[in-house]
Amino acid sequence: MAKSEFDLIDTFFTQQTVQRADVQLHIGDDCALTTIPMGKSLAITTDTMVENSHFYPNIAPRDLGYKAVVTNLSDLAAMGAEPAWISLALTLPKADENWLRAFSQGMFEILNEHHVALIGGDTTSGSVPSITITAQGFVEKNTALRRDQAKVGDWIYVSGTLGDGLAGFYLLSDLYQGKKSAVNLEESYLIQRNLRPTPRISLGLALTQHQLSCCALDLSDGLVGDLGHILDRSGVSAVINLEDLPCSSALLNLYGREQAEQFALQGGEDYELCFTVPDHQKALLEQHLAPLKVPYTCIGRIVEKNPQQNMTYQRQGKMVDLHISSFEHFKS
Amino acid sequence: MAKSEFDLIDTFFTQQTVQRADVQLHIGDDCALTTIPMGKSLAITTDTMVENSHFYPNIAPRDLGYKAVVTNLSDLAAMGAEPAWISLALTLPKADENWLRAFSQGMFEILNEHHVALIGGDTTSGSVPSITITAQGFVEKNTALRRDQAKVGDWIYVSGTLGDGLAGFYLLSDLYQGKKSAVNLEESYLIQRNLRPTPRISLGLALTQHQLSCCALDLSDGLVGDLGHILDRSGVSAVINLEDLPCSSALLNLYGREQAEQFALQGGEDYELCFTVPDHQKALLEQHLAPLKVPYTCIGRIVEKNPQQNMTYQRQGKMVDLHISSFEHFKS
Repeated sequence: MAKSEFDLIDTFFTQQTVQRADVQLHIGDDCALTTIPMGKSLAITTDTMVENSHFYPNIAPRDLGYKAVVTNLSDLAAMGAEPAWISLALTLPKADENWLRAFSQGMFEILNEHHVALIGGDTTSGSVPSITITAQGFVEKNTALRRDQAKVGDWIYVSGTLGDGLAGFYLLSDLYQGKKSAVNLEESYLIQRNLRPTPRISLGLALTQHQLSCCALDLSDGLVGDLGHILDRSGVSAVINLEDLPCSSALLNLYGREQAEQFALQGGEDYELCFTVPDHQKALLEQHLAPLKVPYTCIGRIVEKNPQQNMTYQRQGKMVDLHISSFEHFKS
Repeated sequence: MAKSEFDLIDTFFTQQTVQRADVQLHIGDDCALTTIPMGKSLAITTDTMVENSHFYPNIAPRDLGYKAVVTNLSDLAAMGAEPAWISLALTLPKADENWLRAFSQGMFEILNEHHVALIGGDTTSGSVPSITITAQGFVEKNTALRRDQAKVGDWIYVSGTLGDGLAGFYLLSDLYQGKKSAVNLEESYLIQRNLRPTPRISLGLALTQHQLSCCALDLSDGLVGDLGHILDRSGVSAVINLEDLPCSSALLNLYGREQAEQFALQGGEDYELCFTVPDHQKALLEQHLAPLKVPYTCIGRIVEKNPQQNMTYQRQGKMVDLHISSFEHFKS
C-alpha cells in the first residue's frame, strides 16, 4: 500500500476512546509496552479470519470488525480471563476509507464495551482480506479454566442458546449465493447471532473468581467437537440430555425441535461457554450466577471414560442412538 | 482444512525444544498462560508477511519460517526487550507435510537460538499464504528504547551493514522473474542477508541495561524512512555523514560506493538497529559494546529541527544535495 493509505488506516485505528493505565506505549513504536497486575497470569490467544474461509465477501465491515474481536474475547472468557488489550494484523487489497471507518467502528464498539485497548498491529497489502487479532487478558494465578480439568460426576453446563450460529451461517450462505433475497424477523435474529455473538466475559470471570468451575471452553466449532476436546483432554466421557439443549425460540419456530437439536450439537460459531461444575458446587453456582443475568443450562454429566463412544445421548432418561460429527464451515 | 491436516500442523508446531518456566500452558487450550517477572514491562509486537506482498512464492519455507520470526524479534530488540514467546497465525491453501516441516524447522532454528517459546496460534485455510506473528518480551520498567527520545547533540549509530537487504531483494526479484538464473558468492551473501537477517537482541539489551541510549528502532523500511520516524517523533533533525555509512564488501564490490550508499539510505529489510547516544555516553558505549562483538558505526548527529529538510547529508564535512525517498518493496 502507498504511504498515504497507511496514514488513512492510522487515522481510524488511533482514534480509540479506551485509555488504560496499564498501557505505557501503544500504536506508533516498534512495540507496545504494558504492565501486568501483581499475582496475575497473562492469557494470550490468536485468531485469524480469512475471506471465503471464515466470512463471505459481502459481510458488512462493521459486523466483521465486531466479530473478529468477539472470537478472541470469547477465548479469554473461556479461560476466565479479564480482557485487557488486542493487537490487530489487517491484510487488505486496498485501503478504502468507508470500509475502514465501518470496520474500526464495529471493532471499537465491542472493545469499548469491555474496556479493551487496541495497542498495536500491522497493516499489510494482500489480495485476500484477512484479520488476525491477538488478545490478552489477566487471570488469577492457578485459577484459569482449562480443558483438562473435567472430573467424573461433574455437571455439564452451557451458556445462552446453541445452534443459532450455524443456522445463521446457512442463512448468510443462502443470501450470498442468491438462493434467498430477504429474511424474516426470526431469520434475521439467527443471522445477528452469527454476526454479533456475545463474548461471555462476566460468566468466565464469575466461574474463576468464585472457583465454581476449573474446566471450560468456548463453543466455536460446535458442542460435539468442542466438548469432545474437554473429554479427550480430561480422559472422561459425557452423557448429554437432548431435551435439555437450550435452543432459541427463533431456531425452534423455524426448524422444529429435532432439527434445532442437530444444529445445537453440530453447529459452530455460537461462542457460548461450555463448563463443568462439581456436584457440591451446584447451589453456589446458582447463587453467584443469578446477579449476572447470563442464561445458562445444565445439559448433561461427565461419566467414566467409555472407550467406544466419548459422548452418549439420552432423551427422558432413555438412551438415544445418535452419531453426530462436528460441522466444518466453508469446507473445501 | 480437513481435521487430519490440522493434526499434521499440530505435529510440527508442538515439537519444539524450548521449555520456559514462565509458560504454564501453551498450545492446545483456548489461551496460553504465562507469567511476567516482577518489575518488568511487557513489550508486544505483531508483524504480517503475505505472499507476493512480502515474499515471492518460490521462497524456501525454511527461510520463510526463519525470517517471519526475525522480523518480530527485531522489533523487540529495537525496544531493548528480552524476547520470551511468540504466537503464530498461519494461513495456507493446503497443509503440505514437507512445506510445514521445513517452515517449522526454520522457525524453531531462530526461536531456539534465542530461547523463545511458541505458545499458541491459529492455522487457517486461505488461498494466499500469510504469516502473522505476535512476539512478546520483557523490558525493565521505564528503560525501553523509544522513537521519541532523540535529543539535539546525540550521536546516531547503526549496527551491522546497511543496504544488503535491498540488494538481496533485487537479486531475489531477478531470480524469481527469470532475469537471472544463477548467483555468484557475493550475490549469494546479499540474498542470505535478506532471507536471514540477524535480530540484534544482545545489542538492544546492552543499550537499555547500561542506559547507553533511550532511543532506537529497527531498520525495516530503510534508514531514510525509519530514521525519519525518530526525527518526526522526537521533533529534531539529523546530519548524516555519507562516508561513514557501513556497507558490506559484497555490496561495495558488486555496486561501487555510490550505489551502495543509495542502497544503504533507501533500502529496507536490513533489520539492523538505529540508535542515538548522548555525547557523554560515547566512551561508555564503546566499553559496553566491545564484548558483544556486534559491529556498530556512528553515522551522524541529531541537530535542531530544520523545518525545510529533516535529514541533510555531508561528505568529508561538506554538504551534499541528496533527495532520497524510502523504497517500497512490492509496490503495487
